Amino acid sequence: MKKIINSPEAVVNEMCLGMERAHPDYLVFDPKYRVLSRKQPDKSKVCLISGGGSGHEPAHGGFVGKGMLDAAVCGDVFASPSTVQVYNAIVNNKTDKGTLLIIKNYTGDKLNFEAAAEMAQEDDDIAVEKVYVEDDVAVKNSLYTVGRRGVAGTVFVHKIAGAAAETGLELPQVKRIAEKVAENVRSIGFALTSCTVPAKGTPTFTLAEDELEFGVGIHGEPGVERKKITGSDDLAQKLLDMILEDMPLVRGEKAALMINGLGATPLQELYILNNSAGKILDQHGIKVYRTFVGNYMTAIDMAGASISLLKLDDETMAYLDSPADTPAFGLL
Amino acid sequence: MKKIINSPEAVVNEMCLGMERAHPDYLVFDPKYRVLSRKQPDKSKVCLISGGGSGHEPAHGGFVGKGMLDAAVCGDVFASPSTVQVYNAIVNNKTDKGTLLIIKNYTGDKLNFEAAAEMAQEDDDIAVEKVYVEDDVAVKNSLYTVGRRGVAGTVFVHKIAGAAAETGLELPQVKRIAEKVAENVRSIGFALTSCTVPAKGTPTFTLAEDELEFGVGIHGEPGVERKKITGSDDLAQKLLDMILEDMPLVRGEKAALMINGLGATPLQELYILNNSAGKILDQHGIKVYRTFVGNYMTAIDMAGASISLLKLDDETMAYLDSPADTPAFGLL
Repeated sequence: MKKIINSPEAVVNEMCLGMERAHPDYLVFDPKYRVLSRKQPDKSKVCLISGGGSGHEPAHGGFVGKGMLDAAVCGDVFASPSTVQVYNAIVNNKTDKGTLLIIKNYTGDKLNFEAAAEMAQEDDDIAVEKVYVEDDVAVKNSLYTVGRRGVAGTVFVHKIAGAAAETGLELPQVKRIAEKVAENVRSIGFALTSCTVPAKGTPTFTLAEDELEFGVGIHGEPGVERKKITGSDDLAQKLLDMILEDMPLVRGEKAALMINGLGATPLQELYILNNSAGKILDQHGIKVYRTFVGNYMTAIDMAGASISLLKLDDETMAYLDSPADTPAFGLL
Repeated sequence: MKKIINSPEAVVNEMCLGMERAHPDYLVFDPKYRVLSRKQPDKSKVCLISGGGSGHEPAHGGFVGKGMLDAAVCGDVFASPSTVQVYNAIVNNKTDKGTLLIIKNYTGDKLNFEAAAEMAQEDDDIAVEKVYVEDDVAVKNSLYTVGRRGVAGTVFVHKIAGAAAETGLELPQVKRIAEKVAENVRSIGFALTSCTVPAKGTPTFTLAEDELEFGVGIHGEPGVERKKITGSDDLAQKLLDMILEDMPLVRGEKAALMINGLGATPLQELYILNNSAGKILDQHGIKVYRTFVGNYMTAIDMAGASISLLKLDDETMAYLDSPADTPAFGLL
């Protein structure tokens, strides 16, 4: 295993400390419950909390900051944070307007975030609402999931619900907007190589030199099929076909596009894939309103990428355009 | 070769088109001379042009925008842009205040940028100045270099000279500030894996499973030695020892720190390395004024990282703090 780490056990803590050191004006790290919170909390707005297993950096700590999340709860690599972690994140970041939990649809995350929400409501009288993200069109009922998996589209929920919360909207309104984003975003990814979980030390799966895993999950879960590697244009076509089959867009509709690297993919290739995707969306007459290319929701050191498409309306477009200032997502 | 491309020949053009598509408010791509320029040029300031071989994404096109570069000239992968390319970049982006070329110290880049500067001065009467960056403390007289190599520290030159130019300073002043940054920045990197140049299709070098190349160049040039992989703390110590031996900082001095991924390194590991580096700088009493963690100057798909340290004074600190708004570098 070739990794820049000190020991597998120390990965999550040292990574969070490294994030806090890099972004001292943005983040405070609570090592006891492994929560990254805003350095300057705003108690007058709805609190947005997300998180999940680590290994998806910059998600979720990189999206803590003005215009996006208030706190991110960090589980072990590819493992949900515990109920106690999430509960303490809710209590320690509570505001006057209640809390919205943004949960990627994995069985472990659901259980722990829901139990924590119940505790915070019953014991501490905090209003807690939940929104689930299940944007991955590749497969249903996967390794850790009943239903669809939550992947990179989650970042759009953080951004748009975060902007809505920042304007001072009440909890039901922020929840409604977050749900609208979750309902209108679709993603699908592929892997050229497996990731290596530090504690295991060997790749999760193996691909031949000319093979890719089409529809892979962000924990290395199996996808739809193994394919021979083809060109970027062909790959983008197959990915977008699956997205647009699931969520048809008519000519003239507007969408936000995310070309997300899975951890070990150079920006060179992500931009080439973006060019391929853009040409196809042009052919469909779909207007790409904003594009995001980079590492947003990774699978540790997996080579590969995902495409997310968010269908926009006037409301979500306006919130997408609002400023955001976080370690991994800035919009002036 | 596992890459998301259509063909090796199309890599640079399609990547630049993909950048333009992703950032239409920031960038315009001239496919004839392969130049990425600002969408909204400002003719009242000194023009800053950089560039070099492709394969270092987001460098250099990602740093074109307000507060940084005016244009980036894109060579083939790991090959200098031609004199004609650079000359046209200078002519097509000329402003009322002259042009500063920011050149990484490689033999090919120096030759072509210098010849282009001469042509633009003689034929078009454009005042052109040059600054050279040679921040890599690993080796002297490398594969493509007489003297030291220019690596990730170049991004600090873009940032700080860019901020100075934005205030309306004259060419000699902007050059002086760019040179001050170049003189006060040091970098060193290491590789866990080789990069693969698309046109070649196979890795440039091979490392054993437990080996790293210490002092590697951003084109896969050999470093100081091959070492057994150790922990992140130990690695950061060795890297910073070489930097601080070359550029001693006394207790209380301020520095900007960059933990730069070489293309295939997950953010998880970069943040762990940042934590290691931060602890060591704390011990030295060096105040880390700002930290940048991410992919800034890559070597295609190399796994590995570099550390850059920039010694700051009041002037460079102020320009480092100025806002920047580019595809790959934003500062509010």
